[in-house]
Amino acid sequence: MDTAVAGGAHGAYALGKLTSVVLDALAEGATVRGGPLPGGGPGAVAARLRAACAPVLPEHGTGAEEALRTVVRAVAEGAADPADPWCAAHLHCPPLAVAAAADLAAAALNPSLDSWDQAPAAAVLEQEVTAALAALVYPRAPAPDALITSGGTESNLVALLLARERARAAGAPALRVVCGAGAHHSVRRAAWLLGLPEPVTVACPGGRLDPAALDRALARLAPHTVPAAAGRPESPAPGGPEACGLRAGRSAYGPSGPAAPGRPAAPVLVVATAGTTDEGLIDPLPELARVAARHGAELHVDAAYGGPLLFSDRLAPLLDGLDSAVSVTFDLHKLGWQPVAAGVLAVSGTDLLAPLALRADYLNADDDGEAGLPDLLGRSLRTTRRPDVLKIAATLRALGRTGLGALVEHCVAAAREFAALVDAHPALRRRPGEPGISTVLFRPAAADTGPPGAGDALVAEVRRLLLAEGRAVVGRAVAEDADGTRRLWLKATLLHPRAAGGDLAGLLDLAAAAADRVGAPRAPHLPHAPHTEGPR
Amino acid sequence: MDTAVAGGAHGAYALGKLTSVVLDALAEGATVRGGPLPGGGPGAVAARLRAACAPVLPEHGTGAEEALRTVVRAVAEGAADPADPWCAAHLHCPPLAVAAAADLAAAALNPSLDSWDQAPAAAVLEQEVTAALAALVYPRAPAPDALITSGGTESNLVALLLARERARAAGAPALRVVCGAGAHHSVRRAAWLLGLPEPVTVACPGGRLDPAALDRALARLAPHTVPAAAGRPESPAPGGPEACGLRAGRSAYGPSGPAAPGRPAAPVLVVATAGTTDEGLIDPLPELARVAARHGAELHVDAAYGGPLLFSDRLAPLLDGLDSAVSVTFDLHKLGWQPVAAGVLAVSGTDLLAPLALRADYLNADDDGEAGLPDLLGRSLRTTRRPDVLKIAATLRALGRTGLGALVEHCVAAAREFAALVDAHPALRRRPGEPGISTVLFRPAAADTGPPGAGDALVAEVRRLLLAEGRAVVGRAVAEDADGTRRLWLKATLLHPRAAGGDLAGLLDLAAAAADRVGAPRAPHLPHAPHTEGPR
Repeated sequence: MDTAVAGGAHGAYALGKLTSVVLDALAEGATVRGGPLPGGGPGAVAARLRAACAPVLPEHGTGAEEALRTVVRAVAEGAADPADPWCAAHLHCPPLAVAAAADLAAAALNPSLDSWDQAPAAAVLEQEVTAALAALVYPRAPAPDALITSGGTESNLVALLLARERARAAGAPALRVVCGAGAHHSVRRAAWLLGLPEPVTVACPGGRLDPAALDRALARLAPHTVPAAAGRPESPAPGGPEACGLRAGRSAYGPSGPAAPGRPAAPVLVVATAGTTDEGLIDPLPELARVAARHGAELHVDAAYGGPLLFSDRLAPLLDGLDSAVSVTFDLHKLGWQPVAAGVLAVSGTDLLAPLALRADYLNADDDGEAGLPDLLGRSLRTTRRPDVLKIAATLRALGRTGLGALVEHCVAAAREFAALVDAHPALRRRPGEPGISTVLFRPAAADTGPPGAGDALVAEVRRLLLAEGRAVVGRAVAEDADGTRRLWLKATLLHPRAAGGDLAGLLDLAAAAADRVGAPRAPHLPHAPHTEGPR
Repeated sequence: MDTAVAGGAHGAYALGKLTSVVLDALAEGATVRGGPLPGGGPGAVAARLRAACAPVLPEHGTGAEEALRTVVRAVAEGAADPADPWCAAHLHCPPLAVAAAADLAAAALNPSLDSWDQAPAAAVLEQEVTAALAALVYPRAPAPDALITSGGTESNLVALLLARERARAAGAPALRVVCGAGAHHSVRRAAWLLGLPEPVTVACPGGRLDPAALDRALARLAPHTVPAAAGRPESPAPGGPEACGLRAGRSAYGPSGPAAPGRPAAPVLVVATAGTTDEGLIDPLPELARVAARHGAELHVDAAYGGPLLFSDRLAPLLDGLDSAVSVTFDLHKLGWQPVAAGVLAVSGTDLLAPLALRADYLNADDDGEAGLPDLLGRSLRTTRRPDVLKIAATLRALGRTGLGALVEHCVAAAREFAALVDAHPALRRRPGEPGISTVLFRPAAADTGPPGAGDALVAEVRRLLLAEGRAVVGRAVAEDADGTRRLWLKATLLHPRAAGGDLAGLLDLAAAAADRVGAPRAPHLPHAPHTEGPR
């Protein structure tokens, strides 16, 4: 059993014996934990994990069943489990059982999507699903396309890479990236990785990218301020660019762009956000698209959070203007309820993916291609690649577009309900304005008293106290208050597809009570309740 | 059930009902397929998948059980399953059941390794396992470290990125990468992605990087040939480099390096390979390390394939010299029997990872760090990140180091046995020399007759015929023959932890018989046997 493989005609039998052990260990771990996360804080959690699992690389094995029982139970006991409604800090969703079960098949069969002869059927499934998702983003485009990625970070990286290569193919100076101050850190990290100049950051009053500020920023990027081909090697390395032709008439820059005589303008990619990490706010996409177009810039939208609003007829209009973007990032491991990873990058035309083309004789030799073997290599920056599409496909089929849309609507409604509960709470105050997609910022009213800065410290301590006691996982975000001051808030990101107001009301009392405790003169050490004392 | 979540106290029950459906669908799909891959070739496979799964995004769902039955069965029926010994083309392993079962827990709990409050225990497990793996690679280093990656491609990318940033921190010209002609394509692709100059390629006579050729190449990279800071932006973007200090005395280049007066030398990273993709050959690491050191260059070893030889006391000496490298890529989804993804990048010191450091207030705020919440963000290029360590940990514990070593030894022995079977086969010829780690190249003797080039075409057609008929998945590789001519070979990569000579002998007869059929005057269409006619 210990060296049984998961595939083949008999694999399912061996696998079934071991998944039983895993399911028992999951249930046991959750019961022992008894709440949204383990109590005791980082030191205690680490000590328990180490005690259970040491040594992690023994000389001699303990056998498959013992190993699964021990390791899975320890990780389950020590998990911050988003299936608990009080685990609501991050864009960290509780996966649907249908998706997790389908993912087991991906692990057992182990198709790798870098060549047809490692994934004959899985590759076709990916083709079909990416086509359907691309059509959801670009309903009017003749040939949209999409890639499956490891998440928003990789999607944004590929979006910037494709833009860099379009600029290079057009013989233009190095790409400049322009994004809002609220853009995800992965945008700046991608520019760094790709050797591009640091992105230009535009103000986001109230949390949204301001079209007028973007207009000014793009005007400042006129040719006379273009840095001298920064970040572009003299001799680009091969490995992709061999087929990076630009569609005629599509280029927003290049020979026909707004270049000053004798000096070409740097091509610009504007990155807007549909669902900021901190607040779930959606940038004004139609206005931003118009400003970008007026300056000859391209638009990429990071809709890692907001993209799945498209599943809902009622909510999709919030993303109007999305299809003006040359590329769109969205994740199905946020709203979409997939286990990580389930990222998507949609592009308005399949030819835009040409820079990813790559030839490797062992995977896609010319004569194999001529003989009809599909070439899968240009669909990712990775080579060996897990079929994350399998769980996505099972979920889309199980729920349908309307079923997924209803879950998205549920989360949006839950956030409204939660916001109303905050507003009605005597000891809490909500960040002024409408809540984001399914994100609500709030803070103890006590944080508004006392010397400047002490309020933010109180907010941070409330969060850490709830974490240390194993009572709740709430997030933190810095955001503008009504007076324009940036303050620290507690953040609830509501991604549970079933939990609603009633499940969440107690979380507010818990936060208020924690503020009371923190607000008293601070003891040198925070009180740690035993982790078996769950709140419910 | 359709919207049940996988986590929480009741998740395991919902998940268990659905994993039963998945296991049945896996067994059924494998039975219908009846062989290592589906028959009929790409067109027929695509048609069957589409017929079973259309539409992939229905308006209304079919429910979780129906969706799993349909999608999993279709993908299983259409899989190239490495659990079948005759599926032996690529570095594409059959996962162990223990690993696949553990991966189910990762999907159900969905910890994300970008912050402590999303993965309290999983983060500790990763820390322990990466420490153990790093110590395996660098037994004498005081503080080695390792990252879990999505595979060799990402590991090589990070290795080149870290070297680029070391060069930048030292104020040196842009990094030059030097690799063998047999290096994996991901090395060149990483240079392209990172905006580095195209790598210098060094000859690999007989498939191994030649130390003398490397010596000459490094001599040619003397200061007078350094390109002018190609690929380095004037104003590097932030998102990592804030803390990229170099350990004093560690730098192989920089101020004290072999710079010509007035002109600093370009820092050089030599990339050697321990287990080439085409042949499984190991570059002469000790000699290469000496040559690199003599020229003040650093060494990275891509041991994606060969790294797990370290689990075996008997085979580990094949990797002597590995710990001279500043960083080492290895995968546990090749030898290691993990479902994808399970990549590792080991570095000789944890400080070498500093360029990945990143600050994002919602994930690792300064005051949270001061209060003791661990910072996980600098452990990957990804943000949201699946705990691939869970399946690795379960496997290490189940089998132990010696158990894994025994499986590696099994595959190495199977390749020797297979090579002997080829040598004894009247209609086949093996590539001269020792086989690689567990890779054997061979071709039909008939390919050695006839006009030049026709032999290679025959080899390629034999492979495609076996694929189209659903009979076997063998790979292809171009490699030097005894006369120095590069020829096309069939490739068997033996990664099955149980299959041995007896299971594989029939594959040779099959290949020989296919060569007979292809060798006859070619029909316009290859004959396609019905896919239910398996060879056994």
